[in-house]
Amino acid sequence: MSETAANDDTQKPMLATLLHEGVYRIVMQRPDRMNALSRDMMSVLSGELTKAAADPAIRVVLIGAEGKVFCAGHDLKELTAARAEADGGRDTYEQIMRQCSDLMQQIVTLPKPVIAVVTGVATAAGCQLVASCDLAIATDTATFCTPGVNIGLFCSTPMVALSRNVAPKQAMEMLLTGESIDASTAKDFGLINRIVPSDYLEQVVQKYAEAIASKSSHTLKVGKEAFYKQLEMPLSKAYDFAANTMVENMMAKDAEEGINAFLQKRKPDWTDS
Amino acid sequence: MSETAANDDTQKPMLATLLHEGVYRIVMQRPDRMNALSRDMMSVLSGELTKAAADPAIRVVLIGAEGKVFCAGHDLKELTAARAEADGGRDTYEQIMRQCSDLMQQIVTLPKPVIAVVTGVATAAGCQLVASCDLAIATDTATFCTPGVNIGLFCSTPMVALSRNVAPKQAMEMLLTGESIDASTAKDFGLINRIVPSDYLEQVVQKYAEAIASKSSHTLKVGKEAFYKQLEMPLSKAYDFAANTMVENMMAKDAEEGINAFLQKRKPDWTDS
Amino acid sequence: MSETAANDDTQKPMLATLLHEGVYRIVMQRPDRMNALSRDMMSVLSGELTKAAADPAIRVVLIGAEGKVFCAGHDLKELTAARAEADGGRDTYEQIMRQCSDLMQQIVTLPKPVIAVVTGVATAAGCQLVASCDLAIATDTATFCTPGVNIGLFCSTPMVALSRNVAPKQAMEMLLTGESIDASTAKDFGLINRIVPSDYLEQVVQKYAEAIASKSSHTLKVGKEAFYKQLEMPLSKAYDFAANTMVENMMAKDAEEGINAFLQKRKPDWTDS
Repeated sequence: MSETAANDDTQKPMLATLLHEGVYRIVMQRPDRMNALSRDMMSVLSGELTKAAADPAIRVVLIGAEGKVFCAGHDLKELTAARAEADGGRDTYEQIMRQCSDLMQQIVTLPKPVIAVVTGVATAAGCQLVASCDLAIATDTATFCTPGVNIGLFCSTPMVALSRNVAPKQAMEMLLTGESIDASTAKDFGLINRIVPSDYLEQVVQKYAEAIASKSSHTLKVGKEAFYKQLEMPLSKAYDFAANTMVENMMAKDAEEGINAFLQKRKPDWTDS
Repeated sequence: MSETAANDDTQKPMLATLLHEGVYRIVMQRPDRMNALSRDMMSVLSGELTKAAADPAIRVVLIGAEGKVFCAGHDLKELTAARAEADGGRDTYEQIMRQCSDLMQQIVTLPKPVIAVVTGVATAAGCQLVASCDLAIATDTATFCTPGVNIGLFCSTPMVALSRNVAPKQAMEMLLTGESIDASTAKDFGLINRIVPSDYLEQVVQKYAEAIASKSSHTLKVGKEAFYKQLEMPLSKAYDFAANTMVENMMAKDAEEGINAFLQKRKPDWTDS
Repeated sequence: MSETAANDDTQKPMLATLLHEGVYRIVMQRPDRMNALSRDMMSVLSGELTKAAADPAIRVVLIGAEGKVFCAGHDLKELTAARAEADGGRDTYEQIMRQCSDLMQQIVTLPKPVIAVVTGVATAAGCQLVASCDLAIATDTATFCTPGVNIGLFCSTPMVALSRNVAPKQAMEMLLTGESIDASTAKDFGLINRIVPSDYLEQVVQKYAEAIASKSSHTLKVGKEAFYKQLEMPLSKAYDFAANTMVENMMAKDAEEGINAFLQKRKPDWTDS
């Protein structure tokens, strides 16, 4: 794994990255800080996503983490430190919440599929990170919670992503009780897609991601973008929009190639356009 | 079963239909073409739905299919043939996507319940057809997928219906991987209501549909229409609308008859008004 | 249990109430009338909710019922009696539907968590009552249905709440068939959170509610309000709104206290502000 430049004071970079067969693996490696979404961590994550969006060699993005905590959400020490500022921290909090919301929406609008790979505890904005990804795979030891209510800070931004993944009463229970759910419950709720035993995780995830990476990048981009847009429209507008998307998709090279290949019973040769 | 006029070049009509006890069964019978939604197939399906809407003897509509493939979605040969047109097929594609979206919305706005009866593979727009029905019953051998991504043509219109039936990550997995889900998974996801062994399917479906057909047609019409309308409204508007619907429903004959029958412990005698 | 003033002609009050450790239990006690939501019942329920909202000693609200029927929905005899009025009952029906919709929305907008405790049959507006609560716990003998269609009166207002809890095809099946689902199915659908054997119900519910009551009331209020508001917004607006909510929450005393307590590994001392 190569490692991106770190902009904090420890030696080990905050993120490790690895590109293999079109699958770009981003791994948070601050297990001692529970991979908290400090301003620095959010900044380097966003940087990697921007890079992933631009690099044609990157077709699918994985977000994982080192250690027993996938991500513990905001960095509480960083939040607390800001209280000493003249405005009691308000300006800093506004910046942090904006930065975090932008990061989550960057995942949603990224023109490539993003898959969370959850091997431990996903808490608060860490749970939001999982919810914000297009897909999520977890080990059977992963857990998920939004415990802000326990420290007087309701998980209001995490709930934006959470409540768009799971049913209202299920989201409400997580938010009001602050209790954890296990991987199996998370799968039942629709928060994650698959559960894989730890021993097999790496190979299963890589194979799963490569299968998606083998599709036309153009098609994935068109489809992902349309998915989230139509989701917010009333039915008839969604159909007008999606029908138009489909027509444009049909006029693209990869649809012509893909359909021809299918009818000719051969593998398609994508040009990603 | 009677058979509707076919407007393609083979001898067997595209659809068989049967009306029994208020239940109108429409069966696609182009198993050799995987019951693809060709322009002709969409046209005759739409015609049957128009007829079903108007005929007071028809109280519930079933949509089923002959053969191992319930419906394979758009007719790829038809789509490919249009590439030879002067505009590369654009105009034809616009017409086909419009026709398909109209057909799906015709099911949603039909004043009578529509039930998909899925005995095989439901793919792409075939999966959309299932998702667009009010209810769906399947055999344990039925499967569902949106594999457009495999041929460079993302299932963008199918996802409009799919994403209004199942949770976002579940829909995304089907759309991005193109993989099939079995009937049991489809039931867990909310895409279908019931799974019935093949041997018992016909009698179970008929009984299930007759139970719905035994309700007041007026009440079913009022309720189905209100369901989809209120679903797109914010909560307070939805309540204003539904409360008004309920008052109008109370003033209708069948509510008076139904409530009286209930209080008098007798069977209601509907006038369907 | 103390009992609130009844405004009908029987001796036993319509509601019993009990406040213990911040948990306010409201129990409908008209089992002989299947705890129907008569105008009087809705009026006293609404009064108790108004009281609960205002009383700082009340931190969590439970709504339960005595007898085998949790709540049978509207009072059919009351509805039928109004037919004798000059306008055939229209004005009365408008008042009743308005009152009922207001009651359900009062639960949603109440600044404190409301938990349905369902020990029996929840029918029509009774099912709506469960769906309208933030959380719901039921015994394994509880059942749920929206059977209005059987009496010619589609459960149009109940479906507003129901369809915001469960998937469309699941809601449609309940609405079109009028059939009951058991507690296990209701949990799978997302209509209830937990199932508890009758013998343990009281102590489990009390403990569950006390755990929520132990959080900061201010935080619960902020979070619950934001939850339902953001749910109706498109993603980017939801994030703007929630980020702002989070900043304001950070500036509140209880977030400062809660985060400090967490970092200092001690119990927080809420001021509920």
